[in-house]
Amino acid sequence: MLSRVVSMLENQNPQGISILNDLYDRTGRAYVLGITGPPGSGKSTLVDRLVEYYRDRNKKIGIIAVDPTSPFTGGAILGDRVRMQRHATDSDVFIRSMASRNSLGGITGTTSQVIDLFDVFGMDLVIVETLGVGQSEIEIARTADTTLVILPPGMGDGIQAIKAGILEIADVFALNKADRDGIDALESEMKLMLEFHTGKWVPPLIRTIALDGTGIEDLVQALENHRVFLESGNMLDRKRSDRHEFALRELLKTLLTRDLDRLVKEHHEFKNLLENVRQRKISPYEAADRIYGLLIQRNTREGDR
Amino acid sequence: MLSRVVSMLENQNPQGISILNDLYDRTGRAYVLGITGPPGSGKSTLVDRLVEYYRDRNKKIGIIAVDPTSPFTGGAILGDRVRMQRHATDSDVFIRSMASRNSLGGITGTTSQVIDLFDVFGMDLVIVETLGVGQSEIEIARTADTTLVILPPGMGDGIQAIKAGILEIADVFALNKADRDGIDALESEMKLMLEFHTGKWVPPLIRTIALDGTGIEDLVQALENHRVFLESGNMLDRKRSDRHEFALRELLKTLLTRDLDRLVKEHHEFKNLLENVRQRKISPYEAADRIYGLLIQRNTREGDR
Repeated sequence: MLSRVVSMLENQNPQGISILNDLYDRTGRAYVLGITGPPGSGKSTLVDRLVEYYRDRNKKIGIIAVDPTSPFTGGAILGDRVRMQRHATDSDVFIRSMASRNSLGGITGTTSQVIDLFDVFGMDLVIVETLGVGQSEIEIARTADTTLVILPPGMGDGIQAIKAGILEIADVFALNKADRDGIDALESEMKLMLEFHTGKWVPPLIRTIALDGTGIEDLVQALENHRVFLESGNMLDRKRSDRHEFALRELLKTLLTRDLDRLVKEHHEFKNLLENVRQRKISPYEAADRIYGLLIQRNTREGDR
Repeated sequence: MLSRVVSMLENQNPQGISILNDLYDRTGRAYVLGITGPPGSGKSTLVDRLVEYYRDRNKKIGIIAVDPTSPFTGGAILGDRVRMQRHATDSDVFIRSMASRNSLGGITGTTSQVIDLFDVFGMDLVIVETLGVGQSEIEIARTADTTLVILPPGMGDGIQAIKAGILEIADVFALNKADRDGIDALESEMKLMLEFHTGKWVPPLIRTIALDGTGIEDLVQALENHRVFLESGNMLDRKRSDRHEFALRELLKTLLTRDLDRLVKEHHEFKNLLENVRQRKISPYEAADRIYGLLIQRNTREGDR
């Protein structure tokens, strides 16, 4: 059932949205944890450890693994699925991979909808896992209540350049593979970066070794601390309001784009203009302007959808 | 001047589009080369070599470096800029980094516009360089006449999983860092993959060592062969028509989204609905539906833009 509704949302089947709308009263209980990190940071193993931790405490967990559908990251995703299989038979862990390629209306809007759906279905924790590449993945991280960024040692000069980006989204840092060379250097650099952090919440740096479970309890404690921080300042509500405003805008964009695609397909004038563009009789820029005008005219004529 | 118009396009300043529209007749001469490859493939060095090759032959070159604005790839971008500096003083090489974060209306549409602009300004070759991560980057690669995919040895099991994605977009493969261990294995695996290739053009595998220039002439020859192949079958025109149809759709989406944002800002009803969503009085799904209705009503009332 859950799986079917997720597919509806991915396919922009209006029934999916309608179900969400009917059950919206039941949302607001799940905690949303965004997890991101560069390839090679040990992200999948760490997620696996966290799932294990929360399952031992009987929490129901939903995982949304966002696949940026890169031709170059297929391998990583495949690896994730294999590693997650031991949880796949656990009926209280629901794992869903979402490929942006298959999401007609943009992955960001759909992710937010699936978070609500998991919430409705009684998940205590929703983990949104992204590869940390590309703008949409950052936006997804922002839909989370708490965002965990995983960094491995040995990133070299890179770390200097990534300052701005990760400070913007991280609530907690896991310095993973802490048994490897370069972990001290990574921690020093991160500390230096965080000295300039002016927010009320300074992201803690937690050393972890996901492979053997070292530091997982500390990490969970840091995540919980951030949750308490958010709740104490009424910030959790604001974060969620932001997410829903964002979801609203994304859904509207989807509706408008769907309109556009349908019109381009069905209406003679649009086809003509398109054909003229293809034959270089007019520029795509002029065509866009004229189709835009036609779209508005049509709305005026028909006055409905 | 060129730089100013690029900024206009990035900022969705209508004047930029208007300029493009006026000069559209002058487009269609530049050849568009898309270059993509995973981090660590030596892409920047190879691009640098290609620029050098074409500059020696007195070609004017425009480079669009698409930054997926990942917090984790900042380093790579920075590296690119530094490496490209020796061409930066060459007035016949125009380099523009485009950050998706700064592009209000989606990077894909803007890239296509900047390609047209470079074309108008007399560039013989436009190189569109992406990091090869994320759906939008793949779409950008598809806007090119010829797409070069760079692969380094030592990608391990990954190569198996990425089959589908890269075969879809690659016209030519550069197997770079060909002096490294694993280059034979990479080539064998790629050959095996290409056995199942059913298209008329089978992407050639060219070994290169960008650092010392080995294989660059072979690579250029392979790129030229693909161009000849496209031209012989009238496929170049079709590719460009596809690009312009795509550009048209993207521009329309931008216009519609801009409308939406303006309306949400200016109109009382929208603000009310938004506020109700924030207070959880109605769901974002219901709000989207109602705003969508209002949008159409408004168009009916005003009948213009």
